Amino acid sequence: MDRLLAYMKETAAMVEQRLETILPYADLRPENLHEAMRYAVLGGGKRLRPLLALASFDAAGGISAYRDRALDGGCAVELIHCYSLVHDDLPAMDNDSMRRNRLTVHKAFGETLAILVGDALQALGFRVMAEAAGPMAGQTVTELAKAAGSTGMVGGQVLDLEGEGTTPTVEVVERIDRWKTGALFTVACRIGAILAGADEKALTGLTGYGDAIGVLYQISDDILDRTANADKLGKTPGKDAVVGKLTYPAALGLDGAREALNAKSIQAKDAIKDFGREALYLRLLVDFLIDRVK
Amino acid sequence: MDRLLAYMKETAAMVEQRLETILPYADLRPENLHEAMRYAVLGGGKRLRPLLALASFDAAGGISAYRDRALDGGCAVELIHCYSLVHDDLPAMDNDSMRRNRLTVHKAFGETLAILVGDALQALGFRVMAEAAGPMAGQTVTELAKAAGSTGMVGGQVLDLEGEGTTPTVEVVERIDRWKTGALFTVACRIGAILAGADEKALTGLTGYGDAIGVLYQISDDILDRTANADKLGKTPGKDAVVGKLTYPAALGLDGAREALNAKSIQAKDAIKDFGREALYLRLLVDFLIDRVK
Repeated sequence: MDRLLAYMKETAAMVEQRLETILPYADLRPENLHEAMRYAVLGGGKRLRPLLALASFDAAGGISAYRDRALDGGCAVELIHCYSLVHDDLPAMDNDSMRRNRLTVHKAFGETLAILVGDALQALGFRVMAEAAGPMAGQTVTELAKAAGSTGMVGGQVLDLEGEGTTPTVEVVERIDRWKTGALFTVACRIGAILAGADEKALTGLTGYGDAIGVLYQISDDILDRTANADKLGKTPGKDAVVGKLTYPAALGLDGAREALNAKSIQAKDAIKDFGREALYLRLLVDFLIDRVK
Repeated sequence: MDRLLAYMKETAAMVEQRLETILPYADLRPENLHEAMRYAVLGGGKRLRPLLALASFDAAGGISAYRDRALDGGCAVELIHCYSLVHDDLPAMDNDSMRRNRLTVHKAFGETLAILVGDALQALGFRVMAEAAGPMAGQTVTELAKAAGSTGMVGGQVLDLEGEGTTPTVEVVERIDRWKTGALFTVACRIGAILAGADEKALTGLTGYGDAIGVLYQISDDILDRTANADKLGKTPGKDAVVGKLTYPAALGLDGAREALNAKSIQAKDAIKDFGREALYLRLLVDFLIDRVK
């Protein structure tokens, strides 16, 4: 596990450095927009999606000369993720004031600019993806757009908000988690694999892994929302229960959610069982996500 | 001019039909999101950006077998344009209730869904662009993302909102118009040209045309805001002056704005002076935009 922590730290630093360069500098016009975009993206986050892109690239046997493409592909997914956080926090959405132990973008820069920050970050995400992928741009941009769109992340957000206060069933909760969170996790793995030139079998395995770990991550997040304190979470805990979010803990209780988590961990590891040592970090990540809610 | 009107009508119908198919059907989950996305896009608009993509494709000598790609490329730009209208109309932005003689999306479906409709339409735009462009996806997606982003359309929107109530100068107004409106007009022309396999000279000509006609269109729109009635505009007229928008009429008065319009029309026609008869509709469009404010 120490190896994974070192790998996560190293990857997060590499991603941070790359995003520093990708994001327009704050002295470029419009300065306040660019400053707010940097605030929304830099200085925090576990960078799990870029990590998945890189680890999947390695697991699929990508060559080191092309590893920077996978890094940029991962950064593209991260930019889409960051834009979605900015919009999710808006007053008309989840109305959150704190994120990563700092003020949310609309609290720090106002609602108008927060909407535009999200819009610009989404465009930047697709630009980075297109520039990174070379001849694979058609496929990777298409997949990223599908994962981010109305039958992916945004659709999941709609289902999530609509579900508030209704009776949670595992079927509905799983659909929300798959769309809202799973879609970007899966596409991060797929982009890494595609840029590595993975064959069909490897691509299928990494897709299955992404599907499972996305939902696994969301379950662990929802368990933490009930068990962790504000400092550890970086935001106000317990909010899901207050607004009646449809989550695994709401549908199954904490113990039931932990069981679902274990089932997903088996599914995730099983999907990559034919990979060798090069998939080590993907396997360790499953254990890490299980451990953090113990 | 009758020929242009027939061409515009025919193109708009073709674009409408294509967008009908591109947009997810309203019986697909999440149904309310998809219904609102269709409401935001279908049933109106001059479809000038797809028209520019198609007319530029034709002007650059694109072959008919690939014309559908230019149609889809134009639809991609139109989807980006439509998302920006949904977000521009939000309470935290321009706070408009009417658009194209109908309720704006946030008035008809609520603010929360309107934010997500815009987000999903932007993703769909990039998806359509990537799928349409085949091997040209890397270049066209990159250009579209740049035009839509923080130093293009979104950046222009920031400058536009920040400028409200400040003293208008031609320099600042032109920058706002170039970014807010011109960027998508120019990229529509460029995407059409690129998909036609245009050479460097043709691409430069059509880029210059796009730059000029984008600003020309915005000036004509701002003149109409002062001179047309609500029915003709499809929205409340006179609002620019009330909130102190930085426009050509505000900087130069109506006569000065008309002079600037004429200068842009000469610039637009000059950019494509080496093109033959196949650029007829591009030329006629300049006259059309001048005529509508007479």
